[in-house]
Amino acid sequence: MSAPGEMNGGTANGYHASRLERLVHWAHSLTYERLPADVVDRTKAFFIDWLACAVAGRGHVSVTSMVEYAKTMGPSTGKCEVIGFPDLTTSAAFASLINGASSHVVEQDDLHNSSMMHPATVIYPTALAVAQDVGASGKEFITACVVGYEFACRAGEFLGKAHYENFHTTATTGILGAAATSAYLLRLTEDQFLSSIGNAGTQAAGLWQFLLDATHSKQVHTAQACAGGVFSAYVSRSGLLGPHDILEGRRGMAATLASVDPEPSFIDAQLGAKWSVLESSFKWHASCRHTHPSVDALIALMEEEKIKFNDIASITAHTYKAAISVLSLSAAAETVHQSKFSMGFVLAVAAKNGSANITNFTEDALSDPELRTMQKRVTMVLDPKIDAVFPAKWLGRVTVTTKEGRRVTKNVDVVKGDPGWTLTKSEIEGKVISLARYGHVQDLSLFEATIQRIWNLEVDKEIRGFVFS
Amino acid sequence: MSAPGEMNGGTANGYHASRLERLVHWAHSLTYERLPADVVDRTKAFFIDWLACAVAGRGHVSVTSMVEYAKTMGPSTGKCEVIGFPDLTTSAAFASLINGASSHVVEQDDLHNSSMMHPATVIYPTALAVAQDVGASGKEFITACVVGYEFACRAGEFLGKAHYENFHTTATTGILGAAATSAYLLRLTEDQFLSSIGNAGTQAAGLWQFLLDATHSKQVHTAQACAGGVFSAYVSRSGLLGPHDILEGRRGMAATLASVDPEPSFIDAQLGAKWSVLESSFKWHASCRHTHPSVDALIALMEEEKIKFNDIASITAHTYKAAISVLSLSAAAETVHQSKFSMGFVLAVAAKNGSANITNFTEDALSDPELRTMQKRVTMVLDPKIDAVFPAKWLGRVTVTTKEGRRVTKNVDVVKGDPGWTLTKSEIEGKVISLARYGHVQDLSLFEATIQRIWNLEVDKEIRGFVFS
Repeated sequence: MSAPGEMNGGTANGYHASRLERLVHWAHSLTYERLPADVVDRTKAFFIDWLACAVAGRGHVSVTSMVEYAKTMGPSTGKCEVIGFPDLTTSAAFASLINGASSHVVEQDDLHNSSMMHPATVIYPTALAVAQDVGASGKEFITACVVGYEFACRAGEFLGKAHYENFHTTATTGILGAAATSAYLLRLTEDQFLSSIGNAGTQAAGLWQFLLDATHSKQVHTAQACAGGVFSAYVSRSGLLGPHDILEGRRGMAATLASVDPEPSFIDAQLGAKWSVLESSFKWHASCRHTHPSVDALIALMEEEKIKFNDIASITAHTYKAAISVLSLSAAAETVHQSKFSMGFVLAVAAKNGSANITNFTEDALSDPELRTMQKRVTMVLDPKIDAVFPAKWLGRVTVTTKEGRRVTKNVDVVKGDPGWTLTKSEIEGKVISLARYGHVQDLSLFEATIQRIWNLEVDKEIRGFVFS
Repeated sequence: MSAPGEMNGGTANGYHASRLERLVHWAHSLTYERLPADVVDRTKAFFIDWLACAVAGRGHVSVTSMVEYAKTMGPSTGKCEVIGFPDLTTSAAFASLINGASSHVVEQDDLHNSSMMHPATVIYPTALAVAQDVGASGKEFITACVVGYEFACRAGEFLGKAHYENFHTTATTGILGAAATSAYLLRLTEDQFLSSIGNAGTQAAGLWQFLLDATHSKQVHTAQACAGGVFSAYVSRSGLLGPHDILEGRRGMAATLASVDPEPSFIDAQLGAKWSVLESSFKWHASCRHTHPSVDALIALMEEEKIKFNDIASITAHTYKAAISVLSLSAAAETVHQSKFSMGFVLAVAAKNGSANITNFTEDALSDPELRTMQKRVTMVLDPKIDAVFPAKWLGRVTVTTKEGRRVTKNVDVVKGDPGWTLTKSEIEGKVISLARYGHVQDLSLFEATIQRIWNLEVDKEIRGFVFS
């Protein structure tokens, strides 16, 4: 593999470094010392945010079924922790699998706008498991997470909207991020690192069909993205070679998994200057991120125009094509999880409560006739201007017609939790305590102390002690 | 889920049984007693053929790297055997993973023509591992393999050529077969069985990019298809729900992984009358199956026309589009494995040796200047008539021009090993002994005794004892 300076001159073995090779070269040599302070801070903040999501999701059947699987198939004990399961330790493969599932249950993990993917739920489970397996330090853990974000998000940006239309990008490029995170922590050679990415990309999978039936494959996707990334890095270390250019190659991911709009420059643009972790958004609401621009617009509009829940005759959410495409699959809102993917139900919840947080999506809410009535009054319509700038911008525009016949519209340009309107430290802490409560954490003071410890994670010699009863 | 008789009348919960549900219903209730004798015999024959492939491939780095992975990530001992590794026992997940890799190394495992997929390398590893985990009998094992063949091959036929152009069907529909095999052996309910298939299909992956670099992802695909199928069935048993119609749904496999030519009737046509295992072919030559029609035609032509290797000025292989598409990715023939995917190299080997068996593809062959010269004299050309009937028929047509200027052509309609020209018992035994020798099996008489035992597998109370030093 060639150094970046040689990229246009060819290499000894006769091929030019690909964009992916340049990204691998950069990531392979990245050190903690080269991370800007805001990158380190945000990486720690997302770790806190992620940890709370994993605790909150631990009771879901997608998680307990994987715990059972780990007990059947895995070692009886291991070096790696499983968040929310104090009696279980296992190997990196199973720990990353379970934590990948649990942290994606409550739909509160972060989202990277322009790639349309959720990085934390695949990067942190992998980084935690492999760091515990190899005994990595806090600094190495942080750097490995930053590396994982770059691969997952850049690949997602590269593959674009046409890919997202058919594939759950969190899974398909998440596995690349998980492989990169693992490769970094295993201190692979550059060639092994590249093989890891190739072997991961050839396993990239994740379809949206599960949304139609309110089934649980979304957590299968994140779990297997983690475990598949771990697998790819470990077997590549043992000499199993993977394809070199799995992103841009003739039969690579762009050629096969995206009909249009791959934009190669995303892969290696501004390495070391543009940081994916700084571009990712906290999720403030507990619903699918595609509903957030509309939720923010609706709440602001109702407040500004002093409209009450019972005043509303209809709501129109003007949005982009990807939102309509994904959310129309789950419009029925049959389960708590599916209800978070129904624009109608989510806007009904927001209108009634003035919020759409984790305590607002419950079994009781599913059987609330007022919410069900309002759900039917919500329509999504395609707004070409909003669609044209998506996913670089996730713009919100909502029109409410009142029973008195008043018709008012509100636009929002930045969603709460976005880098341009990020959460304060106290908002983050408030959110995660609320998630810990939702997950029935018994000792909240231990949870709070762990959060404070993570704010200083770079001093830790090892990454351990993130399990709660 | 509805019974087949209700399929057009709808069900209590308001939806019509899909083709996939009908296939699941049929498979769920299949018993050994309902299998025709030739189905049982062929299933045992492919088990023998598969076992020898796994032994022959055990030394490859794709296998040893997964053994190392299993030791790092898996239990220290387990109920399941790993072919060719007498010192290792593990859980079903890791045993199926490793045996899935090893049995696809030497390119001698069977191929099902009309689906373009290799069933044995994903079905037998899975069936063996899960049967050993649950203590299934010989009859249950055989029936589970028959079930796995139906899902893998029917889905491959359904997705067709357009899918195969981008995806390694052995992996993408192999995972469905592995899930079905596991679901059958775990005695899942019909709903759990259907979830297994949905959870498997949403993980379907496997790209051809690895062929361009002579890398090892082909074994990653088969290994992960097995392990992913096992995973899907076990977590579905624990309550993790998968999408209902992963084949024909709006965001299912046909809608997302095949641009054209899905043919739904394949999914549930003639259940219990048409048996995929009877349609699969033994591989007689040790090269990619796409070369076999040309190899057979060339060997026959040279014999009939009394043409010697040194007489040949050029060879033209008239073939179908998929062969040109896949084989042109690996034309360089840099490694032993890649050389089996180069039409030029394979026909050179066949012309020189009068055969293309496992002993003809070696490091020495790669550096044989006569083979390299002949390789360059081979051209593939698209034959529209041959392409029109592919993959239902894999027709061969070769034209040889001699140095004296003679130009002769030979057609073959049936490839050696096909159901229409299947191997005799003694040919099968000769092939597998040769593979066992290639795999350095120390006690060949034990191997031979095991083969004889498999011919009577239905009397076995448990499926165990398939490991060789």
